[in-house]
Amino acid sequence: MNSIIKLFIPLTGVLSIVVAGFFYKWLDKQVSKNTKSLEFSKEIQIGSVTYLKRLFQALFMLAGVITLIILFCLGWQTAIAYLAGAICSGSAAWAGMYISTRANAKVAWAARKGIKVAFPIGFFAGAIMGLSVVGLALIGMSIIYYIFGDPNIVLGFSFGASSLALLAKAGGGIYTKSADIGADLVGKVEFNLKEDDMRNPAVIADNVGDNVGDVAGMGADIFDSYVAAVVAVMILGFELYHGKVEFVFYPLVLGAVGILASMLGMIIVKYRKSDDPGSNLNAGTIATTIFFAILTYFVCKTLNIGGVFWPTIAGLVAGVIIGFTSDKFTDIEQKPVQDTAKAAQTGAALLILNGFSYGLLSVLPSVLGICGAMAVAWFSAVGAGISGVYGVAVAAVGMLSITGMIISADAYGPIVDNAKGCAEAGGENEKTIAVCDKLDAAGNTAKAITKGFAIGAAALTVLALFSVYSETVGLKILDLRNPGVAVGLFLGGMMPAVFSALTILAVSRNAFKMVNEIRRQFKEIKGLLQGKVKPDSAKCVDIATTGALRELILPGVLSFLAPLIVGFTLGVNALGGFLAGSIVVGIIFALFMANAGGLWDNAKKYIEDGAFGGKGTEAHKAAVIGDTVGDPFKDTAGPSINTLITVMSLVATIFGPLMVKFSIFNL
Amino acid sequence: MNSIIKLFIPLTGVLSIVVAGFFYKWLDKQVSKNTKSLEFSKEIQIGSVTYLKRLFQALFMLAGVITLIILFCLGWQTAIAYLAGAICSGSAAWAGMYISTRANAKVAWAARKGIKVAFPIGFFAGAIMGLSVVGLALIGMSIIYYIFGDPNIVLGFSFGASSLALLAKAGGGIYTKSADIGADLVGKVEFNLKEDDMRNPAVIADNVGDNVGDVAGMGADIFDSYVAAVVAVMILGFELYHGKVEFVFYPLVLGAVGILASMLGMIIVKYRKSDDPGSNLNAGTIATTIFFAILTYFVCKTLNIGGVFWPTIAGLVAGVIIGFTSDKFTDIEQKPVQDTAKAAQTGAALLILNGFSYGLLSVLPSVLGICGAMAVAWFSAVGAGISGVYGVAVAAVGMLSITGMIISADAYGPIVDNAKGCAEAGGENEKTIAVCDKLDAAGNTAKAITKGFAIGAAALTVLALFSVYSETVGLKILDLRNPGVAVGLFLGGMMPAVFSALTILAVSRNAFKMVNEIRRQFKEIKGLLQGKVKPDSAKCVDIATTGALRELILPGVLSFLAPLIVGFTLGVNALGGFLAGSIVVGIIFALFMANAGGLWDNAKKYIEDGAFGGKGTEAHKAAVIGDTVGDPFKDTAGPSINTLITVMSLVATIFGPLMVKFSIFNL
Repeated sequence: MNSIIKLFIPLTGVLSIVVAGFFYKWLDKQVSKNTKSLEFSKEIQIGSVTYLKRLFQALFMLAGVITLIILFCLGWQTAIAYLAGAICSGSAAWAGMYISTRANAKVAWAARKGIKVAFPIGFFAGAIMGLSVVGLALIGMSIIYYIFGDPNIVLGFSFGASSLALLAKAGGGIYTKSADIGADLVGKVEFNLKEDDMRNPAVIADNVGDNVGDVAGMGADIFDSYVAAVVAVMILGFELYHGKVEFVFYPLVLGAVGILASMLGMIIVKYRKSDDPGSNLNAGTIATTIFFAILTYFVCKTLNIGGVFWPTIAGLVAGVIIGFTSDKFTDIEQKPVQDTAKAAQTGAALLILNGFSYGLLSVLPSVLGICGAMAVAWFSAVGAGISGVYGVAVAAVGMLSITGMIISADAYGPIVDNAKGCAEAGGENEKTIAVCDKLDAAGNTAKAITKGFAIGAAALTVLALFSVYSETVGLKILDLRNPGVAVGLFLGGMMPAVFSALTILAVSRNAFKMVNEIRRQFKEIKGLLQGKVKPDSAKCVDIATTGALRELILPGVLSFLAPLIVGFTLGVNALGGFLAGSIVVGIIFALFMANAGGLWDNAKKYIEDGAFGGKGTEAHKAAVIGDTVGDPFKDTAGPSINTLITVMSLVATIFGPLMVKFSIFNL
Repeated sequence: MNSIIKLFIPLTGVLSIVVAGFFYKWLDKQVSKNTKSLEFSKEIQIGSVTYLKRLFQALFMLAGVITLIILFCLGWQTAIAYLAGAICSGSAAWAGMYISTRANAKVAWAARKGIKVAFPIGFFAGAIMGLSVVGLALIGMSIIYYIFGDPNIVLGFSFGASSLALLAKAGGGIYTKSADIGADLVGKVEFNLKEDDMRNPAVIADNVGDNVGDVAGMGADIFDSYVAAVVAVMILGFELYHGKVEFVFYPLVLGAVGILASMLGMIIVKYRKSDDPGSNLNAGTIATTIFFAILTYFVCKTLNIGGVFWPTIAGLVAGVIIGFTSDKFTDIEQKPVQDTAKAAQTGAALLILNGFSYGLLSVLPSVLGICGAMAVAWFSAVGAGISGVYGVAVAAVGMLSITGMIISADAYGPIVDNAKGCAEAGGENEKTIAVCDKLDAAGNTAKAITKGFAIGAAALTVLALFSVYSETVGLKILDLRNPGVAVGLFLGGMMPAVFSALTILAVSRNAFKMVNEIRRQFKEIKGLLQGKVKPDSAKCVDIATTGALRELILPGVLSFLAPLIVGFTLGVNALGGFLAGSIVVGIIFALFMANAGGLWDNAKKYIEDGAFGGKGTEAHKAAVIGDTVGDPFKDTAGPSINTLITVMSLVATIFGPLMVKFSIFNL
């Protein structure tokens, strides 16, 4: 039995990669014959590769330093695992970018033939990313575990993945929003250009940004939560149920089952011949969820650990609740968006206040969902004679197991977004562009739901890691009445606020430079506004790239150093409080920012669709300001906080045993 | 010895009231002979009284219900104490309002003779409020303690004060900002009217708002922190050092000493003949701080409890650090404000993002200050053989003891702000108005510092209350690894976010109504814009009043019910986590909002002073949007959060013993 399971896990991972390969071969056969559109796509490819290369150089240095530290402090096994994690995560991000920047022109070309032809190209291009991520993760984790036989070593793999994710997510977020804001503020507001107008020097950078932020960044982010959750359960299983192999293997098996469920979900998407891309995506996600729940039931039966079934489902349900909440608060048909748009009639100030408030309110149902999942997972586990800590960790894996499908739906977004750019650049007719628009709208909804999902998943994952940390450093209790823990709680709570501030300031500074550069080009390059000359897009790409990487240094270093400083000075109790504080505040900030940003975005769209006078009115101008404020909320700071709290938890756990020995005060 | 102390405390309170009475007699002799200005002042008086009456009606209902609940659940002693607290706090607020709305025209009249004549009127009018607050608090607490002999009964007094404070602060905040935003959005932006232009129908409501928000609201808020901190230390002294009377009396003695120090500080202000009102106020505060530190040293010697000296000073220093931080982040001469103003050149979006980020960054030094004070207080106490819990609580009292002076400087702000309005309304010449402007500028700085002070004080106070709660319900440890505590932490953390959302939405809705009413008046009342006819100010006052009280219900009820629900369902462990979560997130939100709001306000002023093109430019318009966004941050949500977390801690502590017995799940 054991060897079957042992074989089943990596083989499913391999199957995932093989299927992704088939999708790639199919995608490769699709063509675009619009040279202008291909040229546009080519520029995005070049920009993306430039950025990714330089990001990987930065990662190479960071990972090099960390590998040396790990090698010196924790031994070569963890160092190898760390490198493997960084490489797997990096490869998945690279593959996703490679595909998405090639699929865009093909989708645009296919859009001539309508939604039914174009949609599958976008979706299956995204699915290549989705399947690569989960496949690589599963293969990497299982092989490292089989070689070293200790899940604590696999934690190094997780840390490697997180290191990349932090750089990819925060860096990508700074990149994409500097370009986006710059392009909008000058192009749209000052010169009345449309989105994706090729005369705008920052258009290429903006489209590159969609890929580096939403494909590479989001992919790396979910990869990182996925791996961290699985490893957390493995370690808890290992520590709490030593010898009982099913508790260690359960999360890996769930991962494998999740891959199968995702593939079944993809089949549903393929054979569902609806004209509505959004409903296709949702059908795929729902089908995957149901398949997964059914398969999990049989897995629990077979492994004879029925007690973990409900914790798994609790996580899955929490994911659905958080996704729905994001949808409710950011949906163009619902009260929050329309109420916020209505306030635009008095100018930008009340619109911003309303969006800000609804963003904060959206924390309520999501946090209740997380608390509910936590409580159900804990008590149903305990009721079945299983450790509550293990139950909560399993909930995180339950939620993340359908990652394959989630990432597919998410990566679809920037692909069709870019496709629209390709169609505009290629001078396609209005009907084709309308098809692209419809594909894009579905992508935006998918993106909002995925963002909620990513935050919820990160929340449950860091809770699992928190337990792993406590077990690793031997904290049987973590007493809030201990002043060290209380101080830690405050310091940790401060981190998401400071991190958000640094990343948003980074976007603001970089966007300011971008604005000046675009203004300069329109002033100095004669004939640019008339469309006679091409803009110097490369210069804008360079500003975005250089700025993103430079601005990444301070928040990046802070994330790694802060837990080390707290741990090695105030001790493991204070660090426990620190992690707890960062988790609570981090989740609140992440939810609030993601949803407020999405809400402002759609309030703008609601007005553009004709409400309160539509485009060109004062209300619309106000809504554009709100949308711009929301940009770094939803695409830079908000989603990076997930990774921040995961990285800090991993640093604490990996270096915890050393802190126990060498902390200065040890409160 | 004991009876001398017992006498000393209430007698100092009485002395405080008597001195306030002398100030009032002196103030009464000051006159204004400008009838138009007096008329303006009269309208503000009427508006303020209308609002306060209706607020007290609302309070009467709320307090009635709570009194009955307390009577039924906890006995008549606590019920009486509760009522006494509400009445004392209400009286202080009423007295402050009464004075401030009468002093404004007098200051405006005196401004004809220059700053040196006008400044003392503003300051000593504020001092009446400051001395009344601390005097009433000290008399109330000591008498209730002498009668019942149990500081737990005095906790009822504190709860009464907090109930009023929550309504006064949040209600006042909603009132003042609905009026302010409404007046600005239509008057300034659409019709190009100046601040305090009498043609603007919302000008009276705006000026009333300054009084109800900043005099009555802020006064009640600090009264509430002050009482809560003193009672917390009394209870801890009572529980931890049963029989040792000096530990119970120490905070009361500190309060009395603080009154004496504040009076000495006021003397310094009186005899300091500087032309700069800001430097006069600061000199008073610094002198009070130094006098207080010296007196405290002797008190500790005399009472033979030298070990509490450093904890007291730690709190005082933390207060100074937080005050300075607020100043640094909101000062017009410093980088954050100027950097934010610079971003206005690209429009409102980057300005808002920058202010938002700097607001978040301002959390860093303040939280470090709070953590430092906590650690120093704890460990210096423990080093001297005193309980660390007691030490941290003492730090809160140390910080709050100079409240007399702090409130004086704070109440000065709205008085001179109103004075400017009176001068404008009275048609005073430019020189007089310039004097009022200068008085007002000093008031704004004082206000920023006080706000930081109020938040820091609330932070340390709720930490003290947290210890009292834990002692009262018998939580020797509060284990974060208990899932109930973790769930509580999340739920508590959510509260400040939800509360902020509700109060800001309230402002937004109410301001929206105000905007429509002002637009209606300008459209329908012929000759209004030409200054021939008076506006219907009463209608605007009514919108602000009715709206504020109606919008208060949901967040108000939530604050009282949430801790009861958590405590009676999930139990006292979960409620402990709930309080901890609300404190950490609450302090972060309060600091961030207060400082971001102050920063945007001054960024606007910086541009109005001529930077980046000055008034009328696009940059200025952008800065006005930022200022409006910041209004409810700094004057509604931000400062109300203090009171929210204090009220929730008090509810938890008072009903804690019942929860121990009757909680449903008791996780």
